[in-house]
Formats: sequence, structure tokens, C-alpha cells
Amino acid sequence: MSQSKTINRRILLASRPNGAPTVENFKLDQSPVPVPAAGQVLLRTVYLSLDPYMRGRMSDAPSYAAPVEVGGVMVGGTVARVEASENPAYKVGDLVLSYSGWQDYALSDGKDLAKLDPKLGKPSYALGLLGMPGFTAYMGLLDIGQPKAGETVVVAAATGAVGSVVGQIAKLKGCRVVGIAGGADKCKYAVAELGFDACIDHRATDFPQQLAAACDKGIDVYFENVGGAVFDAVLPLLNLHARVPVCGLIANYNATGKPEGPDHLPGLMGRLLVRRIKMQGFIIFDYQPRYMEFFKEMSSWVAAGKFKYREDVVDGLENAPQAFIGLLEGKNFGKLVIRAGEE
Amino acid sequence: MSQSKTINRRILLASRPNGAPTVENFKLDQSPVPVPAAGQVLLRTVYLSLDPYMRGRMSDAPSYAAPVEVGGVMVGGTVARVEASENPAYKVGDLVLSYSGWQDYALSDGKDLAKLDPKLGKPSYALGLLGMPGFTAYMGLLDIGQPKAGETVVVAAATGAVGSVVGQIAKLKGCRVVGIAGGADKCKYAVAELGFDACIDHRATDFPQQLAAACDKGIDVYFENVGGAVFDAVLPLLNLHARVPVCGLIANYNATGKPEGPDHLPGLMGRLLVRRIKMQGFIIFDYQPRYMEFFKEMSSWVAAGKFKYREDVVDGLENAPQAFIGLLEGKNFGKLVIRAGEE
Repeated sequence: MSQSKTINRRILLASRPNGAPTVENFKLDQSPVPVPAAGQVLLRTVYLSLDPYMRGRMSDAPSYAAPVEVGGVMVGGTVARVEASENPAYKVGDLVLSYSGWQDYALSDGKDLAKLDPKLGKPSYALGLLGMPGFTAYMGLLDIGQPKAGETVVVAAATGAVGSVVGQIAKLKGCRVVGIAGGADKCKYAVAELGFDACIDHRATDFPQQLAAACDKGIDVYFENVGGAVFDAVLPLLNLHARVPVCGLIANYNATGKPEGPDHLPGLMGRLLVRRIKMQGFIIFDYQPRYMEFFKEMSSWVAAGKFKYREDVVDGLENAPQAFIGLLEGKNFGKLVIRAGEE
Repeated sequence: MSQSKTINRRILLASRPNGAPTVENFKLDQSPVPVPAAGQVLLRTVYLSLDPYMRGRMSDAPSYAAPVEVGGVMVGGTVARVEASENPAYKVGDLVLSYSGWQDYALSDGKDLAKLDPKLGKPSYALGLLGMPGFTAYMGLLDIGQPKAGETVVVAAATGAVGSVVGQIAKLKGCRVVGIAGGADKCKYAVAELGFDACIDHRATDFPQQLAAACDKGIDVYFENVGGAVFDAVLPLLNLHARVPVCGLIANYNATGKPEGPDHLPGLMGRLLVRRIKMQGFIIFDYQPRYMEFFKEMSSWVAAGKFKYREDVVDGLENAPQAFIGLLEGKNFGKLVIRAGEE
């Protein structure tokens, strides 16, 4: 099912999930392609980014951003083509970074758009390596994690949009990098392609023992983006003065009710105290004023060929719900993007 | 039972506690007063500091310092009088800060001693306001907590050696200070004498509600020295970018086995992330190079009459075990010190 020139397909939040989202929580809606008013542009979505944070927007639990209303269009970052323009700053054919959400077409007054430089590789990189996930990896690792050469950095979801960048930056900084991923293929890729020193399969029954063996000098920086059983295995390995940037908790996002005991909180607090560990949550929006600092350094690294970056591209906006459900289960391999239409 | 000139009473660790310590875990031993060799001084304990960290030294669980051996003398900071000296740097009659432990007499080569300045108020202040507890309060609050004028700072064990100093420094920095203490007398003292804006009794059945009402703008800095149910009530009130220096966890020190569920860890991690909270454990030994910075500023505050400081003085070394057991139950009111002998 391809993009139409007259019909705007939109994926709406049909209902709030209880636990893991299902396809029934989404609804594919059709409406006429909107017409730009004075000052507006009409955007056609080329790529839609799918990211774990969107699970939070489906819930109405208090969070750092407002939830999507039931019946509203799912939110998300996009790369879009300007199809019509009543705004002198943009002309038809421009490729822009936008926040159109899960739909084929959207209007914008131009203020929330950034033109994409074709010299910076594939346009979809603006949704990953050079976009929000890359910025998240960069600031969480460097500003909070503060890795030093020779230290051991551990990151889970090691082949994902954020984890793969965390690990590669840590390697550039001279660290030993141990990834955690689901399955042999991803682990092999992390070592052979991304250049990690080791990568452990969290599905292995002896995962905690394997992780401990790979981190024989303990862990100095753990970039937390998964939570759950992975964190339980990491905690005993954290070194004196370890730093734990808390970026995401994908293992917990679908949780319902209170997790079963025993209560691990007192153990965590005791460990923080005895080992003088710093844990700090962050949201990349707080770093907005430092975006250009990231963009300049990362662009130069990318131009110098220092980064490997893998995308998991799914064709067709209508497949976004199923792809997103798979993302929360770790089924993607690389940064997940929907190709909604032709470039 | 007063100090002898010939017999050294020593309180030994008789056995490791399982849960809360009992008097059976200690043993009062007698031996001859030792004789200093060349370079040594003989110290007579005047005041012995009792502090919660000593519970950790009674266990052989991994921690930041080695445990006391079973049969060994309990460790602790002391103010002592030099009774005999074979060290030219000290003369008989000098009053020193020392780390003699739970005993009437000890030998020292002088390297671990500091002479006390009689101008700085009562000698026992060197074990509290101007000593390790005050230094802990100062560094934890200012270096990790970084309170800003107008922010709300919460501290538990509010009338204790550390908490009372944390709150008074926070007031000097222009913060709203809410204490937490056990019982009406301590709460009244925290407000009327220490100058806190409010103090909540953690024994009240509606403690979480009272704390929320007292912190109507949320909590920006929570100085963690108790853990347990107090932390559970604090966590939902922590503001965006709140800071939590983790100094101690007295509520957990006597725990045996794994705490009952539900597991509060995922909830904590989620809160850290959404509210971008920093939690950081610390041990005051790490700040040793900055001791003079603390000492100069705190001495000037004390000289200017800016600090209230209450001691809970128990007479007689033989009463140290019972007093220490009471400390872990919150029975002391003010900094707990043992007066082992005449000044």
C-alpha cells in the first residue's frame, strides 16, 4: 500500500495499552491531504523514526512529555519532502527533518523544521546517528558517564540506535567496551562490525557469569537503556565511583502493576553508598542548547568514516504498529525506521 | 565504673550480629595499660564517638572498609589526653583527636593524631560539628546536593550529628528546610532550636501525607541517611533535576535476608529517568583532601554563633554497647558520645 497524492493515511492511538501494545491499540485512518495556508508547507513523510520512548506517549501516566490523546495521531520524528510551500523559507522538493508523526502528510509553519544537508549521507541518518538517538548517546555517555581511557563501558541494546553509538564513541575515547544484545547475530555484529571488545547475549542462561567474565576489571560506566534483569547483572559489577546515565528502561515499559519481590531497592542504595556510585536520569531535550556541539563533532566523525551504522528499514506506514511492537521486544536489528514513501 | 590507671578496659567484638546487634555481640575485656615505646604516646580516652557506620564494621559483608575482627577492639573516633609521651611532638596533657576505638587506653605513633585547639569550644565537638559527621554533612550537601537559595532541602535523622548540620547549612544557603525525626520532642527541637522550617515525625501514621504537605513545592535535595520507609515517602516528591546524596541507610543496616516485595527498584529507575534525578553515594574519606576547606568555613560559622549543636552524652565506656544499640533504633537525641573519663 503506497502513498496516495490525495489521501492522508494517519495512524491514530485507538486505545491505551495495558502492558505490551497490540495492533488493536492503533487505528489506520484516512483523510484528505491537507492544504497549506499562508506561511505553511505541506510535508510528505519519507522516513518515520520508531523509538522506544513512544511507548511512554501511549500512556497517560505522568511523564516528561504529554501523552498522545486517544484518537490523536501517534507522534514521531520524520524526514519529509516539501510537496507544496506557502512559506518563502522552503521550496518544493526540499528535504527536511520534521516531527510529523505517524502519517503520510502534515502541515508545518516551518519553525520546527531543519533542512537536511545531502552531503551528510543518507537522509534517514538524521533520525539516528546524527539525530535524537545519536545526540542521546553522545550526551549521556560524555556528559554524565564521563568515560576515561582504559575504563570499561557497558551498554545494552548494543546494536540499537543509541547503544551502537554509545559503544563506538566509548571506543574512540579509548575505553574497553562490552555490549549486551539479544542473540548471537547481534553479538557477532557488535564485535566484528562495531568494534566492541565483547558482546554478551542476555538470553544466555549464564548471562550474569558471562558478563562478569567479560568485565574482569568491573564496570566504570553503565549506560542504562534497558533496566530489568540486565541491570540486576550489572549492579554487582559496578566499580568504585562508577557512573550510570539512565537513558531508558525498555524492559519496564510494558510492566503492569507492581513488580514481584524481593525488593531490590535497599540493595541498590547500599551498593551506591559503598561504591560511591552516581546514577543520573536524563532526557535529551534538556541538552537542546548543546545540539550543535554534538552535531559538529559527530558529523566530523561520520565524515572521517569512524562510525558504522545499521538501519532496519520497514516499508510502508501501515506496518508501523507491528514494527513498533517488535521494537519493544528487541526484534529489530539496527535503528528501526519506516520508509513511508519514495525519497 | 571509672577509668583505672593500671587496667585498660576494652570493648571487643565478641560475635557478628545477625540483624540488630545485642549486648552479647560485645565483650568487656581487661588488660594492663600499655607502655609507650620510643616514638609513641599513651592516650587515655576522654570521649568516644558512636556513629551508625560502626554497624558496618561489625559485619564481614564487603564494604568500603575492613571489618573489625571477632575478638578485636571496636573501632571509633576519640578525643584523648596524652598520659605519657616518648614522642617529641606531643607532651603529657595534650588533648588530641584520635582513633583509639572502644577502649580506655591506646598507643599511637602520633601520625594519626591532631592536637585540639581549646578555642574551638568543647573538645567533643571534634567528634561531631567540627569532625567527621560535620564534614560529612558539609560535603554531601554542598558538593553533591548543590542546594540553591529558595529550594527545598529534606533531611532525616534531623536532630542527629549529621542531619542537624545538613539542615543548618541549608538554612545558611537560603533554602527551605524540612526535617524528619522520630517523635514530637525531636521535631519541636528541629524547628524551635535548629531553625528548620518544618519537621515531620516519621512515626505518624500519615507521615507521607504530612511530608507532602510540608514540601508543597516538592523536594530539590534529599540528603539520604536513613533509607527504608522514609525514602519511599520522599521519592514521589522529588522534583525535576533533584539531587540525592546517599550518605547512610540506617534503616537497612540491621536487615537480614532479602527485603520483601514488591520490588521498588523499577519504580525508582523510572522516576530517576522521568525527573532527571541524580543519586550519588559518597564516603567522607574520599573528601579527605578538602578537609581544611570544611574546617575553616565551619569554624568561622561556629565562632559566629550560627550553629546549634546538641550532644547526647552517656557516661562510662561500659555503657557503649547499649548506647550504640539505641543509636540504631533512634533513641539518642543529638550527637551520641561516650564520656569515658575525666577531661
